[in-house]
Amino acid sequence: MQKKNGPVVALDIGGTKIMTALFDADGKMQAKDVRQTMAVEGVEAVIERVLAAVRDIIRNNNVSQNQLEAIGIACAGGIDTGRGVVVTPSPHLPGWAGLPLADIIKDKMGVAAYVLNDASAAALGEQRYGVGKGIKDLVLLTLGTGIGGGIIIDGKLYLGARGGAGELGHMTVEAAGPTCGCGNTGCLEILASGTAIVTDAVARIRHGEKTALSAVSGGELEKITVEMIGEAAKNGDRLAQDVIARAAYYLGIGMVNIANIFNPEMIIIGGGMAGLGEMIIAPGRKMVEERAFSINSRGIQIVKAQLGNEAGVYGAAAFALDMGRK
Amino acid sequence: MQKKNGPVVALDIGGTKIMTALFDADGKMQAKDVRQTMAVEGVEAVIERVLAAVRDIIRNNNVSQNQLEAIGIACAGGIDTGRGVVVTPSPHLPGWAGLPLADIIKDKMGVAAYVLNDASAAALGEQRYGVGKGIKDLVLLTLGTGIGGGIIIDGKLYLGARGGAGELGHMTVEAAGPTCGCGNTGCLEILASGTAIVTDAVARIRHGEKTALSAVSGGELEKITVEMIGEAAKNGDRLAQDVIARAAYYLGIGMVNIANIFNPEMIIIGGGMAGLGEMIIAPGRKMVEERAFSINSRGIQIVKAQLGNEAGVYGAAAFALDMGRK
Repeated sequence: MQKKNGPVVALDIGGTKIMTALFDADGKMQAKDVRQTMAVEGVEAVIERVLAAVRDIIRNNNVSQNQLEAIGIACAGGIDTGRGVVVTPSPHLPGWAGLPLADIIKDKMGVAAYVLNDASAAALGEQRYGVGKGIKDLVLLTLGTGIGGGIIIDGKLYLGARGGAGELGHMTVEAAGPTCGCGNTGCLEILASGTAIVTDAVARIRHGEKTALSAVSGGELEKITVEMIGEAAKNGDRLAQDVIARAAYYLGIGMVNIANIFNPEMIIIGGGMAGLGEMIIAPGRKMVEERAFSINSRGIQIVKAQLGNEAGVYGAAAFALDMGRK
Repeated sequence: MQKKNGPVVALDIGGTKIMTALFDADGKMQAKDVRQTMAVEGVEAVIERVLAAVRDIIRNNNVSQNQLEAIGIACAGGIDTGRGVVVTPSPHLPGWAGLPLADIIKDKMGVAAYVLNDASAAALGEQRYGVGKGIKDLVLLTLGTGIGGGIIIDGKLYLGARGGAGELGHMTVEAAGPTCGCGNTGCLEILASGTAIVTDAVARIRHGEKTALSAVSGGELEKITVEMIGEAAKNGDRLAQDVIARAAYYLGIGMVNIANIFNPEMIIIGGGMAGLGEMIIAPGRKMVEERAFSINSRGIQIVKAQLGNEAGVYGAAAFALDMGRK
């Protein structure tokens, strides 16, 4: 079949939001749309919302369905990219286990569809459009509610045998550590994610420690967010500084492991928590220098992601364009 | 320059022995030679011994120096493969830091020379000639005095930005664990290597625990080896079984991490300690099944290496042949 070389639609389906973007055949973003996932309404309702978003963005930009080359979909969870199936869904997308997402979208839209894990998509996005442009070997970590990862080897996204590669948040760094949501023990995610920071702060407040966070949250501890903790830390709050330092320490251990395992040119820190900036990144950079093999630490760049929450659609677009032209 | 397509010599330089092998242009091993490294005599003496071994094996097999296509060298330590330099030498090769090994051999032999880490070479060897034949994505661990690693991605050896990739023995799995020889903390190597097993056994015997090992070693605890411990474990010795189980547990954590990070088709366990067989491998296989993401554990093969101590020369030969024909 002759390849079309037409525009592609990229989607990033998360537990909270669906981002949809239209890219021209040269890989340039033309338009973007964000709507709520409302996953509680069930799989079919979300799929309908995804299809509506795709139809809207092409119609609004005068692209017809048969001009489309492909649809690329970044999706939270463990994705079998070869089959286009959601194997281990995100806890925020209940009921998605086993969903043949690529086939569903392909059938409804009449165009090739590809699904990949959202952190893998973010890594590809940053490598093609962001801070990792021109870098051949890089690893990206997305820090948020959980911790995801994406691996670029020799300029290409590495997905492993089935698309499950890059689950760097589920690397055990503390064998005797707490049980993670994934069932494994002492994972980076349970020790260094946004959830870990908030849980740690709340536990210490409940334990009677003094902090500005009690007032900021109006005493409603369940309202404490990573952003609040970051703000309090900047203002000198000791507890806030401590819990961020603890997460940064474990993140540093993860970075040392990544340096020793991959000898990458660059480690990119993305996700909402990257907003904490140097507070969360700098300690790890120092640990890599001190603890990794010198051959692995020399020249390594450890930097903040550049594309923010658009990294997923950029990566999904690049993936769809690559797959379409293989 | 026209490529020669001639035979290659492969070397595996370790702290104890130098293995030299001659391969024909089709990559078939023609001859093999093993001699002592005697590293204490200094770098120059070892280099002379290496050169003598190369000259002997080609002369004995009626190959002239100018027929040779290349020399491939697997070497212990952190190797900058691009520059052919030993960056972080093995503790058993003192004085090798900064040694431009590839250039030295190239200058003396008048033929292209390539150096790579010995565990990376073993991974490539197993993938081309051993248990990993036909497998595209695999990870190999060499268990011995230390723990090394090698990574095959898409059928090719992955070395990272400078050749330092694959240091899987220096992945922290116990953040609060003991300090490793490399300076990092709680590395897989300090918890699961042969050295770790022996150290653990001796400490427990010194602590007064009863074991058949006291008699086997004639009371000279410094003579206890992993092989003795393995034998005692097979004979039902509780202490021996315990220390092996502890190492196997940490090795299992390492395997779960490898599964979640790489989603490989296969994990290969090589090195001297692979001789312990299922005793050291089976617990990890079970842990991968229980703890890794299902997309990463499904279908994964966790197997013993096939080439024994020849894996390094096989890999060095494959690397030299690949590089010569790029």
